[in-house]
Amino acid sequence: MSEFFNVLPPDEARELFLKYIEPLDKSEVTPVSESLGRVTAEEVKAPNALPTFRRSTMDGYAVRSVDTFGASASLPAFLRVVGEVMMGEEGAINLLPDQASIIHTGGMLPDDADAVVQIEHTQSFSEGDTIKDRFEIEVFNAVAPGQNVIQVGEDVKEGEAILSEGQKVRPQDIGALLALGITDIRVTAQPLIGIMATGDEIIPPKHPLRPGQIRDINSYTVASLCQRAGGAPKVIGIVPDNYNSLKKAAESAVKEYDMLVISAGSSVSVRDITVDILSELGDPGILVHGVATKPGKPTILGAANGKPLIGLPGNPVSAMIQFIMFGVPAIHQLQGVRPLPSSKSIWARLEQNISSESGREDFIPAKIVEASGEIFTSPIFGKSNLIFTLVNADGLIKIPLNKGGVLAGEFVEVLLF
Amino acid sequence: MSEFFNVLPPDEARELFLKYIEPLDKSEVTPVSESLGRVTAEEVKAPNALPTFRRSTMDGYAVRSVDTFGASASLPAFLRVVGEVMMGEEGAINLLPDQASIIHTGGMLPDDADAVVQIEHTQSFSEGDTIKDRFEIEVFNAVAPGQNVIQVGEDVKEGEAILSEGQKVRPQDIGALLALGITDIRVTAQPLIGIMATGDEIIPPKHPLRPGQIRDINSYTVASLCQRAGGAPKVIGIVPDNYNSLKKAAESAVKEYDMLVISAGSSVSVRDITVDILSELGDPGILVHGVATKPGKPTILGAANGKPLIGLPGNPVSAMIQFIMFGVPAIHQLQGVRPLPSSKSIWARLEQNISSESGREDFIPAKIVEASGEIFTSPIFGKSNLIFTLVNADGLIKIPLNKGGVLAGEFVEVLLF
Repeated sequence: MSEFFNVLPPDEARELFLKYIEPLDKSEVTPVSESLGRVTAEEVKAPNALPTFRRSTMDGYAVRSVDTFGASASLPAFLRVVGEVMMGEEGAINLLPDQASIIHTGGMLPDDADAVVQIEHTQSFSEGDTIKDRFEIEVFNAVAPGQNVIQVGEDVKEGEAILSEGQKVRPQDIGALLALGITDIRVTAQPLIGIMATGDEIIPPKHPLRPGQIRDINSYTVASLCQRAGGAPKVIGIVPDNYNSLKKAAESAVKEYDMLVISAGSSVSVRDITVDILSELGDPGILVHGVATKPGKPTILGAANGKPLIGLPGNPVSAMIQFIMFGVPAIHQLQGVRPLPSSKSIWARLEQNISSESGREDFIPAKIVEASGEIFTSPIFGKSNLIFTLVNADGLIKIPLNKGGVLAGEFVEVLLF
Repeated sequence: MSEFFNVLPPDEARELFLKYIEPLDKSEVTPVSESLGRVTAEEVKAPNALPTFRRSTMDGYAVRSVDTFGASASLPAFLRVVGEVMMGEEGAINLLPDQASIIHTGGMLPDDADAVVQIEHTQSFSEGDTIKDRFEIEVFNAVAPGQNVIQVGEDVKEGEAILSEGQKVRPQDIGALLALGITDIRVTAQPLIGIMATGDEIIPPKHPLRPGQIRDINSYTVASLCQRAGGAPKVIGIVPDNYNSLKKAAESAVKEYDMLVISAGSSVSVRDITVDILSELGDPGILVHGVATKPGKPTILGAANGKPLIGLPGNPVSAMIQFIMFGVPAIHQLQGVRPLPSSKSIWARLEQNISSESGREDFIPAKIVEASGEIFTSPIFGKSNLIFTLVNADGLIKIPLNKGGVLAGEFVEVLLF
């Protein structure tokens, strides 16, 4: 039985592990409209200011603000309307003093105008039948220069950095890029993640079970977590539980993929073989051999020439929790996401005592309920082999390293799935 | 200019709107391994118990627990090891009284055994060269019946409901289904969402801008939000700003898609046409004409024979916020998600006063920063035309309906993007 000669606290383990992972130097150009969730490979600057012209924020009249100074309900300013700015067209209307132009929300201000009076603050006296005819308006409120106008460059200035390198593209980023006419963007490649399982008791999910056998599920829960984190997972399958087969499969996978995950079955012999093989795939080999967490202590973390290697415990709950803790940040780092996002979590009031051990970080599947405006959480206890403890859970209560336990009524952090 | 004759508070507006949206009656069977994020179309029950056999949770010896009763370090129990349970094989070993079998984590308990002694609590005296040979062990700790054993059905019982109808499939759900040998699952169809824009000033993102024009971005921010919510968006494009063109396009879209979104440009005339057309597409037509929010008051919500209709304001910030408030729940309802998920939000301490008006729900783009263990938020002020207020934001501060404003230092809810 191999010793856990290098058991580290989780934060230390993660820091050491990430230090050896090189962001991929592959990138590709993709249409902005298809870039949701991808990661920018370079900073993007605004090629021009936005908006490109002075726009009205109101329906009303474009005016020279000076003509409205002093106007009030009892002493309105009288202006002559001499035209209408059509939507999508240049505001090519000359305004002499005491003249105004009809303008719509989003319309372009005529050169001579510097403000917009909203229609509700006016009264018109039409001289003809159509709005195109000239007519007089009374203006009841003075407007200041620039009022109800978006200035050129008010949204973004030419040359301003709009997206930084290593940023996950969100819906509003897509909008901002397209607003500037940027329809293609360089994003980092999606890391290819090879996932294999080993263990004589493991069979593919489609196969009928014989007594003593269980189905491979870790490959698929890990693949789903990879997918969520922006990676491109490939389930390699089940590799026979012997040194030569596993070594051959791992060597080929580490060439083909950007990251290798082995779900190592639960017997000690398989774990030992996994350790040996992960240490032989490249530099520096194994970095962490055991993490001070429950569940998931027998996790193996390493790197082979910049590529992350992860040996997961066979228990499905351990495997998922450990992959969330180490695999997901590794995928982000390969993608070049900066800064690395932290897991989403909330704080909730604990409904039941939880015991723990100081010097170990515990993660307990938990339900979350909201009652009378407060958030409560209750642990779902169960052995780490029981996938249904996670199916019934909304998140994972985290008991910090230095705590011997938490009492009902205390606030705890709950990582959300 | 049309009156806002039916301006409703947002919660009331949403409730009324959702009442008229029928979940799609389309579903399809998909491989479980590709079902992440899809919605279950029916309840799933466990076809068999899990695990299917009694499994060891330790490396050690399968024993009859009664043989260990009273054992201690000073007075160990002596047992004779008569075999080894191989991983993935039936535990077909007969144990007579005072006999034990080697067993590995995950191994199947022999019929005669009812507990496992972990290897660390034993000492062995080998009689031969290999582990297969019979040998004696001393057991230093008594084990109770069932100790270090997972019982049949301990994870899930036969016939137990494991996923309810209308549930979004998560990684652990995929694991649980596969563990039971369920490799295909019936999920609801992805709603097809037709998105069109109108307004004479709007041009496609790829086109060069002439003065007075802006590029269509709402179609793409809305499409991204649809995609995130599990819908299948289709950007129909820009429809000329006149009754006949828009009516024809809307009628054809409402036939082809499960939901119709019109981003209505910013001028009043376009909004009026949109209102007219949305009221003519089916029953009951327009339900909400204006929502008591800022930004986004001129939102139109309706339904045509069970299909949601949304008319969004032209301003990109308003459009996004309103789509998050109404479009996303509509997509969830079409997919049959139950219960409807609420927006993710956190509570943060406000760094700057914000004024508002009672009777209106305000959403202000905001930065979130963590400092000395506390979460702070500061508003990004800017007109609702400015997409970069959202690009620079981490979320939206929500000022409730009944608040006239919030002071620095108070806690506010921030909806996360």
